[in-house]
Amino acid sequence: MEKELSIIYSCQKEVELLGQALSLLNWDQQTYMPKGGVSSRAEQCALLEVTSHQKFTDKKFFSAVKVLKKKKLPYDKKRMIEILYKDINKARKLPPSFVEELSRTTALAHNAWEEAREKSNFVIFKPHLEKVVHLKQKQTKYIKMPGHPYNSLLDDYEEGMTVEKMKPAFEKLKKGIINILHRIESSSAYQQQKPLVLATKIPKEAQLAMCRDVVQRIGLQENDSRMDLAVHPFTTHIGNDDVRITTNIRDNPFFAFESTIHEAGHALYELQMPKKYAHTVLKESPSHGLHESQSRFWENMISKSRPFWTFYFPRIKQAWNIQAIEDQWYRELNRINPGMIRIESDEIHYGLHIILRFELELGLIDGSIKVKELPQLWNEKMKELFGVTPKNDKEGVLQDVHWSGGSFGYFPTYAIGTIYAAQLYAAMKKKMPNIEQDIAQGKYMLIREWLQKNVHCHGSLYQAEEIIKKACGEGLNTSIYIKYLTDKYTDLYNC
Amino acid sequence: MEKELSIIYSCQKEVELLGQALSLLNWDQQTYMPKGGVSSRAEQCALLEVTSHQKFTDKKFFSAVKVLKKKKLPYDKKRMIEILYKDINKARKLPPSFVEELSRTTALAHNAWEEAREKSNFVIFKPHLEKVVHLKQKQTKYIKMPGHPYNSLLDDYEEGMTVEKMKPAFEKLKKGIINILHRIESSSAYQQQKPLVLATKIPKEAQLAMCRDVVQRIGLQENDSRMDLAVHPFTTHIGNDDVRITTNIRDNPFFAFESTIHEAGHALYELQMPKKYAHTVLKESPSHGLHESQSRFWENMISKSRPFWTFYFPRIKQAWNIQAIEDQWYRELNRINPGMIRIESDEIHYGLHIILRFELELGLIDGSIKVKELPQLWNEKMKELFGVTPKNDKEGVLQDVHWSGGSFGYFPTYAIGTIYAAQLYAAMKKKMPNIEQDIAQGKYMLIREWLQKNVHCHGSLYQAEEIIKKACGEGLNTSIYIKYLTDKYTDLYNC
Repeated sequence: MEKELSIIYSCQKEVELLGQALSLLNWDQQTYMPKGGVSSRAEQCALLEVTSHQKFTDKKFFSAVKVLKKKKLPYDKKRMIEILYKDINKARKLPPSFVEELSRTTALAHNAWEEAREKSNFVIFKPHLEKVVHLKQKQTKYIKMPGHPYNSLLDDYEEGMTVEKMKPAFEKLKKGIINILHRIESSSAYQQQKPLVLATKIPKEAQLAMCRDVVQRIGLQENDSRMDLAVHPFTTHIGNDDVRITTNIRDNPFFAFESTIHEAGHALYELQMPKKYAHTVLKESPSHGLHESQSRFWENMISKSRPFWTFYFPRIKQAWNIQAIEDQWYRELNRINPGMIRIESDEIHYGLHIILRFELELGLIDGSIKVKELPQLWNEKMKELFGVTPKNDKEGVLQDVHWSGGSFGYFPTYAIGTIYAAQLYAAMKKKMPNIEQDIAQGKYMLIREWLQKNVHCHGSLYQAEEIIKKACGEGLNTSIYIKYLTDKYTDLYNC
Repeated sequence: MEKELSIIYSCQKEVELLGQALSLLNWDQQTYMPKGGVSSRAEQCALLEVTSHQKFTDKKFFSAVKVLKKKKLPYDKKRMIEILYKDINKARKLPPSFVEELSRTTALAHNAWEEAREKSNFVIFKPHLEKVVHLKQKQTKYIKMPGHPYNSLLDDYEEGMTVEKMKPAFEKLKKGIINILHRIESSSAYQQQKPLVLATKIPKEAQLAMCRDVVQRIGLQENDSRMDLAVHPFTTHIGNDDVRITTNIRDNPFFAFESTIHEAGHALYELQMPKKYAHTVLKESPSHGLHESQSRFWENMISKSRPFWTFYFPRIKQAWNIQAIEDQWYRELNRINPGMIRIESDEIHYGLHIILRFELELGLIDGSIKVKELPQLWNEKMKELFGVTPKNDKEGVLQDVHWSGGSFGYFPTYAIGTIYAAQLYAAMKKKMPNIEQDIAQGKYMLIREWLQKNVHCHGSLYQAEEIIKKACGEGLNTSIYIKYLTDKYTDLYNC
């Protein structure tokens, strides 16, 4: 048994190290790489993906896992073997040539997406996306999970989740959101609401300084993290004590600040994972939804709350020279507005953004929607759900990075994460009823510790929903999220 | 034969791509990586080094090379096979465990060196350097080239070069330099020379702006290159059309400007290599000496010349607010001064810096010098050759990055490169007698083209000295370099 364990630890570690090298290649491509480097980068990534896939699906590794699967083991090792068995089994269904093609295709697609987005021209991206979609359809045929073909992709991000479970949950979410939205829209506060006015044209450096300040308070240090600029903000884990976030400066200065807080939530999770499981699958999040719960928690529950601004408003007022009082600022920040861009969305419309993408993804993967139809369908759905139409592809179908990378099945995890985040905050407040006083003083240590003790410390020892059950006493519960939204926006819009 | 060629092309490409990924890991470590990332980085690099070594020494690859070695092939393919045969044969002598250990050891040593250098404390670096030296001694035993054990290391940088050839060449160089130096030192111009005064405390951004300006004129574009800050300036080739240089801001503002020009010379060479040999060993420089000739050419022959400053002095005068006339500036820039730091050295003392390192390296590798003796020996040799003693380890034994990376055998190539650079400039001026007029107008296109046609276009189709023969009509000729120095400094010091 010792022999098998040693094989398993060393193979996991090699796969992890290759993954980290790949993360750096991706980080660099999105931050500093000269444009000329793109074709080489695609080939470098493809080679590392294939090498990693080969190592992960190696016979010797899988055999060792299969031997240990039959043995009596302590819980943590048993769970590790369980995850490895499932993942290797899935990975072995994908031929190396497919993995290489997918990697090369998505690297080029990413670049095409950047150009297309910059020029607001879907045509540049279209042939690349067609290739990506074709490959992802092929992937569903290799993986062949029961039910909708999309399930085979979704499982990569949210273990155990299916279209069949998702659809009713999203129906409930949609109804809940539309219900609140109607109440808000019919309020006089909403009807008299003015356009965004308080913070405009804040210099880039002043925005970045605030971002750095909040990131540090959340708990990232210069020694273990860094922040750079990228077209689309993201977090990546390059090594132990090396986590990187990116941000992007846009017209609305809330954007950089809040997206930075969002990414810092992801990064904190990575940094607080159990070190004793280093170089194993146990030192990973069990699902994207749970990872997203960490970013959404900081972004929504913390940084869009009144107590947060008790501390931060005087600082930002001075640093950015804001002419307003705190209450105006808080309202403007949480202003409901059917905007085009998901990551600039208010909390209410956010769920609708996800539902729109989920519906399109289902069609793309089952073949009922063609890539060429996307821009029009996108705009139609925006009209239907939001009552507005994007004026171009940049603020429509080209806004998100995910499809260029082949990440179909990723979007739903944002909604799951947001629901989990609301549940975690409710549980945290039950345990620490005075936590808002800390937040009002810019002190996040107790929050950091609570998250560490209730979520981060588990790594992937349990499935995401089990961790939520341990922390909150129950699994996914959309009602708590709907209640959070209702309470907050009833107060804000007096409706 | 088609089968073998196909194996050879795909294996070379994989090794190249892994090398590029490694270059990025190294670049990142020296530019942006948070300190906490160092131990993971060491393991990532070790894994990629081993993977690359495995691929390079793979039986299938070597067999294909051996088959083609016996066939009649066109010149370029024949040369490619010849290089591969030699290099694989050498690499196969190193066990993978050794390669891994060396990679991990040097990654940690690099970090220790940075800390030691910052704190000017050799003790921090000592145990790491001892491990590195031990491994390099071991390497010489695996490789076992004839003659001095150092030959087995030197050959990695300068094919065909040996200690036995090097020693008399360096004797000649030493004599030549000391001869000029004595003449300079006894000149009244030297004796009345004032300390550096013209450019002091130039703001970092103003320095970097000038660096960017000159880099662009030399021929690097935003699309295919970038410049960042690092402790020790270097150039690295991350992919086709992705070459990166770094610089470092020091008290003397000539430093950043000239070291940037030096690195730009390396980068231009990389960018102008023959694209038709992409992903093969033919699209590489045949030796470090030849690579160095490209950087030293731009740094010494161009940027320390009078015509260069005819164009640049008015610009720098304005940008940096310099109170001087061009002639003063030119003299100050070329001022002879027995300084401690190699990469801040004047042209005359530079060769002595190399000779000092070469002599210490020989002793370290043959065991006659112990690592613990290094600081003292360094200082004694400085006293002997320069007449001055470093006041601490930072300006003594800790100044260079090379040993932390295990690059023993690298330093001599700087001297070889400098000699080649003088030969190339002499040949270029013979062909284009009016080239100084272009330089005086900040126009480097003809120079770029000449270098491309006479050096860069060859890749490694020929050995370094053959390329020099083609370009200059003869191989390595120390006398031309000595003559260059004599002419220049006779004029400068009127001696």
